[in-house]
Amino acid sequence: MNILVINAGSSSLKYQLYSMLDESVLSKGRVERIGMETAILTHETAGKPEIREVNEILDHTTAIRKVLEMLLHKEHGSIRAVSEINAVGHRVVHGGEVFSSSVIVTDEVKREIKKLFDLAPLHNPAHMMGIDAIEINLAAILQVVVFDTAFHQSMPAKSYLYPIPMSLYHKHKVRRYGFHGTSHEYVSRRAAAFIEKPLDELKLITCHIGNGASCAAIVNGQTLDTSMGLTPLEGLMMGTRSGDLDPAIVPYTMGKEDLTLNEVNSMLNKHSGLIAISGISSDMREVEKAMGEGDKNAKLAFEMYEYRLRKYIGAYVAAMNGLDVLIFTAGVGENSVLLRQTVCRQLTFFGVELDEELNQVRSSQERRISTSQSKVQVLVIPTNEELMIARETYRLVK
Amino acid sequence: MNILVINAGSSSLKYQLYSMLDESVLSKGRVERIGMETAILTHETAGKPEIREVNEILDHTTAIRKVLEMLLHKEHGSIRAVSEINAVGHRVVHGGEVFSSSVIVTDEVKREIKKLFDLAPLHNPAHMMGIDAIEINLAAILQVVVFDTAFHQSMPAKSYLYPIPMSLYHKHKVRRYGFHGTSHEYVSRRAAAFIEKPLDELKLITCHIGNGASCAAIVNGQTLDTSMGLTPLEGLMMGTRSGDLDPAIVPYTMGKEDLTLNEVNSMLNKHSGLIAISGISSDMREVEKAMGEGDKNAKLAFEMYEYRLRKYIGAYVAAMNGLDVLIFTAGVGENSVLLRQTVCRQLTFFGVELDEELNQVRSSQERRISTSQSKVQVLVIPTNEELMIARETYRLVK
Repeated sequence: MNILVINAGSSSLKYQLYSMLDESVLSKGRVERIGMETAILTHETAGKPEIREVNEILDHTTAIRKVLEMLLHKEHGSIRAVSEINAVGHRVVHGGEVFSSSVIVTDEVKREIKKLFDLAPLHNPAHMMGIDAIEINLAAILQVVVFDTAFHQSMPAKSYLYPIPMSLYHKHKVRRYGFHGTSHEYVSRRAAAFIEKPLDELKLITCHIGNGASCAAIVNGQTLDTSMGLTPLEGLMMGTRSGDLDPAIVPYTMGKEDLTLNEVNSMLNKHSGLIAISGISSDMREVEKAMGEGDKNAKLAFEMYEYRLRKYIGAYVAAMNGLDVLIFTAGVGENSVLLRQTVCRQLTFFGVELDEELNQVRSSQERRISTSQSKVQVLVIPTNEELMIARETYRLVK
Repeated sequence: MNILVINAGSSSLKYQLYSMLDESVLSKGRVERIGMETAILTHETAGKPEIREVNEILDHTTAIRKVLEMLLHKEHGSIRAVSEINAVGHRVVHGGEVFSSSVIVTDEVKREIKKLFDLAPLHNPAHMMGIDAIEINLAAILQVVVFDTAFHQSMPAKSYLYPIPMSLYHKHKVRRYGFHGTSHEYVSRRAAAFIEKPLDELKLITCHIGNGASCAAIVNGQTLDTSMGLTPLEGLMMGTRSGDLDPAIVPYTMGKEDLTLNEVNSMLNKHSGLIAISGISSDMREVEKAMGEGDKNAKLAFEMYEYRLRKYIGAYVAAMNGLDVLIFTAGVGENSVLLRQTVCRQLTFFGVELDEELNQVRSSQERRISTSQSKVQVLVIPTNEELMIARETYRLVK
């Protein structure tokens, strides 16, 4: 069975075609600048060179048509007929309180996703365009939606409620949802398999540290708490997002700088975090490079980033009253030797003992980076949200 | 030497007259409803019955005059001439970045305090009225100001900066200041004395849990971090304040409910926290009572309150990579057996071992509530901000 995984953004669309026999990627690629005359399609089929095409692609329906043409392409494709695609799995950012697991797309499901546009105005409408575009191009194919929020729906009320008037929860669904759920679930499962212990006997903290970043406290294989909240703004310091603030800073700044609601949202989501403090980049690699060259702002940005992450780890250890496994994943988590080192060296009180040499190893493999005596196992587990979506789709349609 | 300690609010004024020979309180009292025809003065001199008077007191100058009359009162007073008051110490909430310790009031100091009105619009103007009222009534007496923020000025940049555009710090002084500093300093010193260890060899967490609540991580006798921020809204869940939130909730709620900046501030400061979740009270005693009677909302409010406090403790253990002493103080911290029990029972991973019997003891004495084997010592230290202000004043004027 082959499954096409789609991650549709408002002007972009990423895809991977999986063969579920061996979970291999047959083809993958992305369309960028949808809506423009100079949209770019980048495509690669296993064992063949990557190709890149510039076309007019004005909407998601056209984007999907181009992707299908590529998948069927005599030279660059991997299938001979669209019937070789058995199902499509979509990433959907917000599943609200309605969806605590992946579901097959129906008219009812589409209505519910639309109701959630308000909670994820930048994401859910784009995902819906992806779903509709598949429907137009592939008619009756089975589609599955996999939600970033679903895994975190196990949180207890003490974690997901905010101490604000309850009417905001009842009227406007203001609560913690958490995001990156597919990744947190994937790496927590992989971690348990890696150390050969049952997941439901472990207390884990998963640190998904990419351009967006969140961590989660996982007990019995379920989220007890996670750092992102109503939106992906809360929690850790990120590439361009502030993470946690005194909430009073929002009205204070709006008043002082005469900002609208959109402007303050934009400031906190797009012009904060690493870029704001370093003045250099939202990319941790650039910040570390500048720090290595003696840049003081870059050093401060790194220190704040590390310190805020470490505090979350401590908070979740207290939340679980214990810690068996600490997991780093996603771009920064998988690749920043320095971040992992700085965090772990200052968690010895918790029984974390980093193996400095193992931590230096650069590899895209799952690996342990703590010493064999370390009371807490520290792992690097490369995330794979697309594979998780493919598996979920397979599970539901088979 | 006798020192008069003043805590002036916008419509209230609390006072204590200390004899610094033995740090005893000669007289104490409060004026409430300043600005009204039916203002109330409550006064008590050691060893004499409390008295209560209703008067027209339209401003702080009149309030101070009435207080002085009481202190000199033949029957209810404790001194025979105003010259027996050697100095006055004032609590001032916000000292900004200018004041990292207490200072004697000069014209320059008054100008600086006025510059900070913007950062503490509810507090600093009221304190200034108290200072002016003393000046009018007692002419050339030495006055000292003791700032709630001063003790926390030792924080490093990684703790006090927010990951938002640096221009907000440079232009508008948006940073973490922290509050309750006088209390955190007092209880941390007392704790070190109590366990007979030098303060500069200890890692402490001080939990000042009253109607307002904050905690602090203290290393080498200095604040490394504290939970309140630019304003006293950030951090722990409190009686009527939310504490930490996804910052995006602020613009989201303003948009949904069409709230002004003042309205959203008021919602988060006055209608959130314990009162919002319990629907019963902002007073922990009432919430615990209702919980005991089976009220579900009260139980949820307590759980959130405890859980959020425990997460801060964990965060600060990670911040310091260690913990020697955990201190509870202020109304709830000193009196809620249940809160301390619930927190400490779930911190065993950190080496906290609560002595359940010692924790039951209700006493206003400094005491240990951990077992003798506990790796972390847990103490209850009644706070005394007024005494600390008297001591600071004495230190500066003697």
